[in-house]
Amino acid sequence: MLVNRRKIQIEWGDCDPGGIVYFPRYYEYCDACTLALFASVGLPKPQMLKKYGIAGIPMVEQHASFFEPAEHPDEIVIETKIAEWGRTSFQVHHKIFKSKSLLAEIHEKRVWVKRISGSRHQFKSHPIPATVKSRFDARRRSRKS
Amino acid sequence: MLVNRRKIQIEWGDCDPGGIVYFPRYYEYCDACTLALFASVGLPKPQMLKKYGIAGIPMVEQHASFFEPAEHPDEIVIETKIAEWGRTSFQVHHKIFKSKSLLAEIHEKRVWVKRISGSRHQFKSHPIPATVKSRFDARRRSRKS
Amino acid sequence: MLVNRRKIQIEWGDCDPGGIVYFPRYYEYCDACTLALFASVGLPKPQMLKKYGIAGIPMVEQHASFFEPAEHPDEIVIETKIAEWGRTSFQVHHKIFKSKSLLAEIHEKRVWVKRISGSRHQFKSHPIPATVKSRFDARRRSRKS
Amino acid sequence: MLVNRRKIQIEWGDCDPGGIVYFPRYYEYCDACTLALFASVGLPKPQMLKKYGIAGIPMVEQHASFFEPAEHPDEIVIETKIAEWGRTSFQVHHKIFKSKSLLAEIHEKRVWVKRISGSRHQFKSHPIPATVKSRFDARRRSRKS
Repeated sequence: MLVNRRKIQIEWGDCDPGGIVYFPRYYEYCDACTLALFASVGLPKPQMLKKYGIAGIPMVEQHASFFEPAEHPDEIVIETKIAEWGRTSFQVHHKIFKSKSLLAEIHEKRVWVKRISGSRHQFKSHPIPATVKSRFDARRRSRKS
Repeated sequence: MLVNRRKIQIEWGDCDPGGIVYFPRYYEYCDACTLALFASVGLPKPQMLKKYGIAGIPMVEQHASFFEPAEHPDEIVIETKIAEWGRTSFQVHHKIFKSKSLLAEIHEKRVWVKRISGSRHQFKSHPIPATVKSRFDARRRSRKS
Repeated sequence: MLVNRRKIQIEWGDCDPGGIVYFPRYYEYCDACTLALFASVGLPKPQMLKKYGIAGIPMVEQHASFFEPAEHPDEIVIETKIAEWGRTSFQVHHKIFKSKSLLAEIHEKRVWVKRISGSRHQFKSHPIPATVKSRFDARRRSRKS
Repeated sequence: MLVNRRKIQIEWGDCDPGGIVYFPRYYEYCDACTLALFASVGLPKPQMLKKYGIAGIPMVEQHASFFEPAEHPDEIVIETKIAEWGRTSFQVHHKIFKSKSLLAEIHEKRVWVKRISGSRHQFKSHPIPATVKSRFDARRRSRKS
């Protein structure tokens, strides 16, 4: 299974008055990592939306466990993989490390959706094309970005 | 059980290129709502930290379900309550509405922690004082902020 | 001249490890205030873009002076007005107060632009309709939002 | 003069409903670049605060010019240098490029401040030590981070 690894430097502005990462930033980091995973198989988000005529891959469920804090200027590494493909949805797992320490885990369920015609923000789930799923099997080496 | 209601206007800058709220913003809104709930019982965060000698009430688990999107300039209402008190931890539930529509739910588990002496970002959970918990029972009316 | 006043509560997550507002947040607050000023004359951004066929009112110049910090849970008030109308551009001035103290001032120059046909993110400035400008004269009372 | 170059990938979540970078993000990027410039001469912010007993290097003036937009997943490069040292303040200039195109320029004036004793968020400017200034002369090669 393809695992994308991404290094992120914790910025001063990502931290709160307690001196540690303000936790919503982890969701931003992980969103960027999910998109980086798709980009790593040749599907940067804008092209993916166009190529498959989808409105997006919106989040429907998310679960996070936070174990240890990080602070500026720590460098963290996020490992991201597709944990499971459903018919119209998929699970993404992120592990957030500082050196060997696991700081947090975020699991997400996203859906492959198209816009309901005539509506602006109403979406309907659609089957994920097999050619999308197979891109993640084809490349077995882990990648850095 | 005390329920805090907070109106939030969705700003243009809170939305992504899809035109809908960038989902990490919901975690920011809900964090502000948890603090507003504590403030509504007389415990604004800075005073609470000082009064009880705690380092914070860090997030340890969080679960979110997203049902429908919102966009600028929607006005949403977030209803926030303590769902359960543990000995050293507590559960907060948020329901995010646009008019009558439930857009999302976020459940969080936070811990009452003190700094381990001599360390900067190492924390140890401590029992939540009964006088903190009772503040939330004492006031039965819902409040707007 | 129409002045829009907006109260904003400084959130914990808006502050940095120094315990004060992370300064880029002021630019976010003021952007929301510019849009609130237009909304106050009946031009919420999405409708304004549609009604006038514009791509936006992008920032071209911005100047900020920061005098004093604010912290959570301060409440600040931002006063926003159009300082000057040009043919295709306009100046917006924001004054940021905490009680009587002026914390910061942000001046911005924005342009009225349409998308160059066939391009996605190339814009051309266009004359601002007189009917837009006159909305700001017509209403002389200050408004709260 | 030391110039720090930093590559930044524009994330989906950094962009607004117009599909382009939400402009306050540029201020966040540049703040990180100023800190990266100091880190490149051996002064990561936390150590710098401690070593020199300062409360920070807060922004007092900022001027930005925005020429062209960027979008996800563009990669931009920000060139950052100290443009001028004053006695207690200094000017930092940032140039933001996408390939050869200059997208924006941000100039900032920051002050070297210590906390007024007994106060939490009241600061007084202090002379910048010559040993701080000389670190930026000593290293003449440009650096990537």
